[in-house]
Amino acid sequence: MTDVKSAPKATPQQMANAIRVLAMDGVEQAKSGHPGMPMGMADVATVLFSKFLKFDAGRPDWADRDRFILSAGHGSMLIYALLHLTGYKAATKEELSNFRQWGSKTAGHPEYGHMPGVEVTTGPLGQGLATSIGFAMAERHLAAKYGEDLVDHRTWVVAGDGCLMEGVSQEAIALAGRYKLNKLTVLWDDNEITIDGKVSLSDTTDQKARFKAAGWAVKAIDGHDMDAIKSALKWATRQDKPTLIACKTKIGKGAATLEGSHKTHGAALGAAEIAATRLGLAWDHEPFEMPQTIADAWAKVGRRGAKDRKKWEARLAASGQAADFTRAMKGDLPEGAFDALNAKIAELIETQPAQATRQSSGAALDQVFAAIPELVGGSADLTGSNNTFVAGTPILDAPSYEGRYVNWGIREFGMAAAMNGLALHGGVIPYGGTFMVFSDYSRPAIRLGALMGVRAIHVLTHDSIGLGEDGPTHQPVEHLAALRAIPNLLVFRPADTVEAMECWKIALETKTAPSAMALSRQKTPAVRTVAGTENLSAKGAYEIKAASGEAKATLFGTGTELALALKAAETLEAEGVPTRVVSVPCVELFEQQDAAYRASVIGRGTIRVAVEAAIKQGWEGFIGEDGAFIGMTGFGASAPAEVLYDKFGITADAVVAAVKARL
Amino acid sequence: MTDVKSAPKATPQQMANAIRVLAMDGVEQAKSGHPGMPMGMADVATVLFSKFLKFDAGRPDWADRDRFILSAGHGSMLIYALLHLTGYKAATKEELSNFRQWGSKTAGHPEYGHMPGVEVTTGPLGQGLATSIGFAMAERHLAAKYGEDLVDHRTWVVAGDGCLMEGVSQEAIALAGRYKLNKLTVLWDDNEITIDGKVSLSDTTDQKARFKAAGWAVKAIDGHDMDAIKSALKWATRQDKPTLIACKTKIGKGAATLEGSHKTHGAALGAAEIAATRLGLAWDHEPFEMPQTIADAWAKVGRRGAKDRKKWEARLAASGQAADFTRAMKGDLPEGAFDALNAKIAELIETQPAQATRQSSGAALDQVFAAIPELVGGSADLTGSNNTFVAGTPILDAPSYEGRYVNWGIREFGMAAAMNGLALHGGVIPYGGTFMVFSDYSRPAIRLGALMGVRAIHVLTHDSIGLGEDGPTHQPVEHLAALRAIPNLLVFRPADTVEAMECWKIALETKTAPSAMALSRQKTPAVRTVAGTENLSAKGAYEIKAASGEAKATLFGTGTELALALKAAETLEAEGVPTRVVSVPCVELFEQQDAAYRASVIGRGTIRVAVEAAIKQGWEGFIGEDGAFIGMTGFGASAPAEVLYDKFGITADAVVAAVKARL
Repeated sequence: MTDVKSAPKATPQQMANAIRVLAMDGVEQAKSGHPGMPMGMADVATVLFSKFLKFDAGRPDWADRDRFILSAGHGSMLIYALLHLTGYKAATKEELSNFRQWGSKTAGHPEYGHMPGVEVTTGPLGQGLATSIGFAMAERHLAAKYGEDLVDHRTWVVAGDGCLMEGVSQEAIALAGRYKLNKLTVLWDDNEITIDGKVSLSDTTDQKARFKAAGWAVKAIDGHDMDAIKSALKWATRQDKPTLIACKTKIGKGAATLEGSHKTHGAALGAAEIAATRLGLAWDHEPFEMPQTIADAWAKVGRRGAKDRKKWEARLAASGQAADFTRAMKGDLPEGAFDALNAKIAELIETQPAQATRQSSGAALDQVFAAIPELVGGSADLTGSNNTFVAGTPILDAPSYEGRYVNWGIREFGMAAAMNGLALHGGVIPYGGTFMVFSDYSRPAIRLGALMGVRAIHVLTHDSIGLGEDGPTHQPVEHLAALRAIPNLLVFRPADTVEAMECWKIALETKTAPSAMALSRQKTPAVRTVAGTENLSAKGAYEIKAASGEAKATLFGTGTELALALKAAETLEAEGVPTRVVSVPCVELFEQQDAAYRASVIGRGTIRVAVEAAIKQGWEGFIGEDGAFIGMTGFGASAPAEVLYDKFGITADAVVAAVKARL
Repeated sequence: MTDVKSAPKATPQQMANAIRVLAMDGVEQAKSGHPGMPMGMADVATVLFSKFLKFDAGRPDWADRDRFILSAGHGSMLIYALLHLTGYKAATKEELSNFRQWGSKTAGHPEYGHMPGVEVTTGPLGQGLATSIGFAMAERHLAAKYGEDLVDHRTWVVAGDGCLMEGVSQEAIALAGRYKLNKLTVLWDDNEITIDGKVSLSDTTDQKARFKAAGWAVKAIDGHDMDAIKSALKWATRQDKPTLIACKTKIGKGAATLEGSHKTHGAALGAAEIAATRLGLAWDHEPFEMPQTIADAWAKVGRRGAKDRKKWEARLAASGQAADFTRAMKGDLPEGAFDALNAKIAELIETQPAQATRQSSGAALDQVFAAIPELVGGSADLTGSNNTFVAGTPILDAPSYEGRYVNWGIREFGMAAAMNGLALHGGVIPYGGTFMVFSDYSRPAIRLGALMGVRAIHVLTHDSIGLGEDGPTHQPVEHLAALRAIPNLLVFRPADTVEAMECWKIALETKTAPSAMALSRQKTPAVRTVAGTENLSAKGAYEIKAASGEAKATLFGTGTELALALKAAETLEAEGVPTRVVSVPCVELFEQQDAAYRASVIGRGTIRVAVEAAIKQGWEGFIGEDGAFIGMTGFGASAPAEVLYDKFGITADAVVAAVKARL
């Protein structure tokens, strides 16, 4: 290592050019990618990382680091270049030159869990920004809980025009404004360019006025003026509200002939343009090679936070809160988290309450909310309907950030994305409610949560035609299938209170996947009436009622329809047809069981009928080609629940008839 | 009918109270529904319908009527009451008293196609507003095309706080502002109440400033002051930009003790409150009974537009455009719409081009775009990638509304909702492109389009891991299953250019369902090489290659993977395994075929293997329990396409091996 003090100092401009060159070379090497944005935002990023971002490249896991979120994820070379230059161990030259290749950590869009320093997977536009609300909210919440000595950091977001055009950005900025998340700063890459050409082709919104209307402080600067950037970032740290800095930039800044052109957005610049650009930038180095002065200057930036980090560690150690804070940030549950819940399950098997599974879910929360202080709940304005509120919980609000319940407003997508952010930040386990049909609104965030593997729990009540009169706009019929289709998402549909509690337990214990709870509006009887300590739902599907003799029929059911299967089995048994019933609270967990267990549950050779008030898709694997499915074939209708079940033929009688037709 | 001139005249206030009482009585009768909003907006609606809305209750299909869109669809009793009072034939007293019951036209939320006068299904918040963009755009487009003599009407939207909090509202208002849709007026029910309580619990946005930032003209009024309402509506008709009228109202206005309370939002008021309210409103009539003066006054409103309608009919008849206009509004295709396409298909079977199916889709558009002048295309800022632009097409812009291509911006949801509006308005057949993975963003509108049965064509390119380096955030794996799960949506995944053209033909001919085209980024060989005039894709699945003898194996494939199935079949045949190959361009259409055809295609008794670069869900019905599926089991990765196919094992060799393992 050269002595940086005696070497000629790299200028900020040279440091920024290092990003530009890495970006264009990385994309050129991959023959694919987006050089325009990293080149355009290189100056802003250089000032942010050099002077403001609190981080220590040697310790990407420092809990009190600032979070840097590249919402315009296509500009991934920006973050890879920054991580490489500042000395993140994983961001090697090899990784950079392997950009977008199989097995590299430098995926096309930044992927959480691949490369330390990437706080969140971005690419689907608007979502980085929306997720950042969760980060900034987690920071305020934990600061209120543990003290500003331990939690005092900022969230910096780089967002593009695409992020701001996506509707979810409105949900996000409204939330940030409402909750006065003053440690959140959005650096808008105001380059006036989208893929199809000028922004003005499709948008003439006064973004600055729009953010002001949402309660933000706003400043506009020349995004290539280092001094202006510096003073704007300084200004941002002093506001009592979230801040937008509109950075007027040129996309592909520095490119010899394409600077300012949408052609730099999403394709390699090509050898000739790159050669000319090197000339223009006076950059006489091989791809991925850094001159020592610039490398040193950036390395120094990477170590800038080490001292603060050590001080913070000392404060943590001295705080008396180290063990709890560390546990919470790791996402481990406290000792005895489920003691009350387990006791309640034992009790419920005796009392056998008939209630809606949304109530059962609420009852589960009642048992764990105090025991797991990381839980932060909320609802997209359906608190009473979602049963997400535990009585007595203080509301998370500004300035009372210590509250544990968020009024998300009518913003399902924004809520779900923010929940991802809360979970990714660490120290919080978020759950949030809406009607199941509106999982279509939050779906992009549910998917991203599944891809990242974060523990966010989506409470989806009103899970079928059983919601009744609100009609087909509000009745999920395809949503169970559509949610089960998302990889790494656990979709639970408990049949009664015991199963609901078991499912909540699994969801809370699963640190690496989000969960969706499908819960009924309408009442349903208790089905789990035999005592036992095993969490049967953990196997995904299990025999809840054995046949009286050698089974002739197997009935599968979930949620409120399991009771129909059980009733049908009773009838069939009375008529001399030995019938077993299988409860399927979680298809994904069942698919993870070994082949022998699965075969034993499936029961090939028996007449197989599944009943679920939803479409058939996905059930063929349970019932085979000759089995029957009792459910929906199209959209629902507006009428009382019991009328709908009858009219759509989702009844115990229909199950019985389907078996008999196959005897 | 009494002579309205001699009878004592009903006051506007009494007319508004008629709405209030019908709303509270309808909800009370159903014991379910939302009285608060109709009661709160009764005054605004009374002025709008009495003085401004251009309509003729006797002719709900009048093409040049104003469109009234209840974006806050939960307040459905508002529109039912209005339709009833103004004399829409279908809106009988019986229907009102059957609110929310099985078989009634008065569904819980207003449903398009149930009750004339309901222009669009609403309920999922924000979507009515977003759909209205399409209505207003269609109006401007058709006015430019047919002249303002034939097309000159307004779109009036009632939106609530929920509509404005949903992110899609931002996409919608930005589009309306950008396209200067000055004949669009949003009447915001600014009642400061949401389900969970005060709006301020979750939102402090300055909505008026926000709309102004998007290029709207804005006015705020007391929504219970009839004169203020009148002058505001008048003002709205004179603006050169879209208009927002913030109507400060009291939710449940008129309710004896609950006026202003969120308790009136979503539940019946109860007998006592209703009795007290009747007293307060001096309303001494049985439920659903109208005093004659009020009935007469409203009936007169319903006939108000008849004269204008007749004049318009005369203008249409004299215009020389009657036949074409009427055909277009009915949604019928012009004569010879597919002549060029059919000729091209015949040619392609000879030339057998190898190209990406997104290019094939573009080639189909090239053949039909001139022949079907109702087609209006667009893309959510991915024009070049989606192949949605037909060379030479003028852009739809303000004031050049006659253009046929819309730059939707990075707003997939807003685009899809507006496409629904364009289709519902009539006279336009919309298609719009985005990456398939972002169908998650537009999904709520795709669903609503399917529920309504509108012809909107979603062009979804980059349909698998085959898009390569952009990685898992951009690679659909579950989207085919998730889209196929939506009832009444045709999901096409053509395998080559001929199939792409066949699928486009079906999509265009299907007036009662939306379509989704799943199209590849990467090149794929031609597979349809045998001449014939039958549209084989119309059966959904068909044998594209027969076995050389009695089939031992059946291979199913779609899109780019069909070529893998064909290659595998070649290998298997060479090794003495008679193998047939089935192309499955549209699962939904296949399911509509008769059982005998389906059985003949499925080929039970053969070894069955399906290949699709997506998850298995849904394929069990084709391959049975002992068949094999070659596809994805989780999210994709970032690498070149060919590497991904190889690494994820989606290859012809894998298909061959799966068959051999079962021989």
